[in-house]
Amino acid sequence: MTADDGALRRTTGVAAFPGPLSLAGGGILTGFAIAYETYGTLSPARDNAILVCHGLTSSQNAAGRDPASTRPGWWEIAIGPGRMLDTDRWFVVCSNVLGGSAGSTAPRSIDPATGRRWGLRFPIVTIADMVDAQAALTDQLGIDCWQAVIGGCMGGFQVYEWSRRHPRRLRQGIAISATPATSAYTIALWEVMRQAIYADPAFAGGDYTDDRPPLAGLGLSGMIGAVLWLDRDTLATKYGRKPAMPDAPLGRTLAPEFAVERFLADIRGNAHARFDPNSLIYLTKAVDLFDLGHGHASLGDAIATIAARMLLVSYASDWRYPAAEIEDLAAVMRARGIDARYAALDSHIGHGAFQFDVSALSPVVADFLGR
Amino acid sequence: MTADDGALRRTTGVAAFPGPLSLAGGGILTGFAIAYETYGTLSPARDNAILVCHGLTSSQNAAGRDPASTRPGWWEIAIGPGRMLDTDRWFVVCSNVLGGSAGSTAPRSIDPATGRRWGLRFPIVTIADMVDAQAALTDQLGIDCWQAVIGGCMGGFQVYEWSRRHPRRLRQGIAISATPATSAYTIALWEVMRQAIYADPAFAGGDYTDDRPPLAGLGLSGMIGAVLWLDRDTLATKYGRKPAMPDAPLGRTLAPEFAVERFLADIRGNAHARFDPNSLIYLTKAVDLFDLGHGHASLGDAIATIAARMLLVSYASDWRYPAAEIEDLAAVMRARGIDARYAALDSHIGHGAFQFDVSALSPVVADFLGR
Repeated sequence: MTADDGALRRTTGVAAFPGPLSLAGGGILTGFAIAYETYGTLSPARDNAILVCHGLTSSQNAAGRDPASTRPGWWEIAIGPGRMLDTDRWFVVCSNVLGGSAGSTAPRSIDPATGRRWGLRFPIVTIADMVDAQAALTDQLGIDCWQAVIGGCMGGFQVYEWSRRHPRRLRQGIAISATPATSAYTIALWEVMRQAIYADPAFAGGDYTDDRPPLAGLGLSGMIGAVLWLDRDTLATKYGRKPAMPDAPLGRTLAPEFAVERFLADIRGNAHARFDPNSLIYLTKAVDLFDLGHGHASLGDAIATIAARMLLVSYASDWRYPAAEIEDLAAVMRARGIDARYAALDSHIGHGAFQFDVSALSPVVADFLGR
Repeated sequence: MTADDGALRRTTGVAAFPGPLSLAGGGILTGFAIAYETYGTLSPARDNAILVCHGLTSSQNAAGRDPASTRPGWWEIAIGPGRMLDTDRWFVVCSNVLGGSAGSTAPRSIDPATGRRWGLRFPIVTIADMVDAQAALTDQLGIDCWQAVIGGCMGGFQVYEWSRRHPRRLRQGIAISATPATSAYTIALWEVMRQAIYADPAFAGGDYTDDRPPLAGLGLSGMIGAVLWLDRDTLATKYGRKPAMPDAPLGRTLAPEFAVERFLADIRGNAHARFDPNSLIYLTKAVDLFDLGHGHASLGDAIATIAARMLLVSYASDWRYPAAEIEDLAAVMRARGIDARYAALDSHIGHGAFQFDVSALSPVVADFLGR
């Protein structure tokens, strides 16, 4: 299917695979589908392709606009003619992760064995599983080797797994805001967000219906996520102690009186199950499980298979994915003879900075990808 | 009533006041009660009394043990013979804050106008209101002037309000982990915790019954609080990526597989409404509203009435109540001629460090109080 966005030359598709796909957690998918979008044009030599790996709550719609959607793609500022990922030069692909529920096989898909939605009976999916499913898509697109695989946060985890699991299938890996393992703190946060969803009676153990999603739980979960997405200084600068209603006296009601409470109320009010709750549960679980060094004698051993040139980017304000851990990982890579570059950026946005402001990231990526 | 704990010489009581008490938010309490405990013996000159102001989820039971309770007082390590607040020397008083629901007038009290519990019809209470109610208790105890008023977090806010509202009624103020205003970040966190309680159907708009408290909402709220109480490094050191069950393979179930998730599940499991949910809502609201400078031309103007010697203590790990803001407040005090000392301590416990480990705090407080 082609949904042309003018100069972006956007196409959308869903690739089906017969499987079986054996998952790291022991599950097996007898068949699976991966939804994807492409921007720009694949060169005749098929050597200008860049894979964009999306973060937790994003999708394959990285650029351009679905007719059904009022919102631009999640990395609209980074993908297009003349942009960081210049679609006049690169053929950019973004696929919905396994478990992502935007068209790829996920908890909201039908389990062929029962004819019902998987719900919480969907098997546990890991970052490695997502990458292996993307590798199948890579075959189907006729791409032997990506010029680059790029992503931030959960997308960055995918870059690491791509680099070590399929070392000959990418020339360059760009991982942004991605530590070598998920911290106890982040696991704790995801768990609280999941419990907020579980606690909503409408969740019904994961068997909610499309017309009655667990909106209260999702809204609460979104509020928790928002607070933890942003950092203290950002909230202080943006909202501080500003009242929700200018000049209204404070201390008169339990309803939101501060602008920051109004902001949270808006997040809750905007919870429209546009991100499937079961998917949120499975994807945060995949992030929890991410630990490059697990099962290896050392982190160095765990990444020793990497053959691509690597660029690791951190943001100073991203306290959940600390710059120091990312810098250390780059050093471990270099100690193993990997051509690994490290760039420390700054932003007041905190985690997710790469998604909303690429002004600092763009020149770093352009320099790394070369002319 | 006397509930003697041996050498601690503990007494408990509830003082009733006819009122009316005009509250900062515009409400009026026609009468009110303040529950309190005392430890040690008031000197004949009535000049050895120290008031301990409790934090958000504590109570007047700072030391010793209620017959009904299996837990020691919340500041047991700090209060007693030979301890930081040496009850062989000091007469230590701790009172339950207005709104605190451990015996003081609060949302779970009966509204005399209706004969029903106040619930969410209870008026908004501020830190200043809590302090004014404590001042009434001070009168009833026959204490003209406290040797010291001490407290951490919300207790520290009370110390500031005591110092500037009743400057002649305390000789020394010791505020721990207390910034001059509550940050947008903390307001946001409280709001999310409140919304977790509101979202529980059992909350019933605040009109839940004793036999059916909103345990799910409280448990979720407690999980949110726990994550934000502790800091990233503490969780990393204590739990890291340790599995909940040693040697169990990871990635097999959505149920807690990590020790940190088990820790959160235990917090939820221990939610027993021992802290009244409506009180949590009112006290977090009081903390939200705390802003020393509000209504003054400058922070200096706001604290200019302080006459007591002041000791301000910060903890480096307490990122929600940053040391720099507390140090700045001490400087503002000194610029106004106030004898203000500042002590920067370190602890891995984060916010709440003062409550669980007084090894660093004790000598600082002892030195400040003198011999």
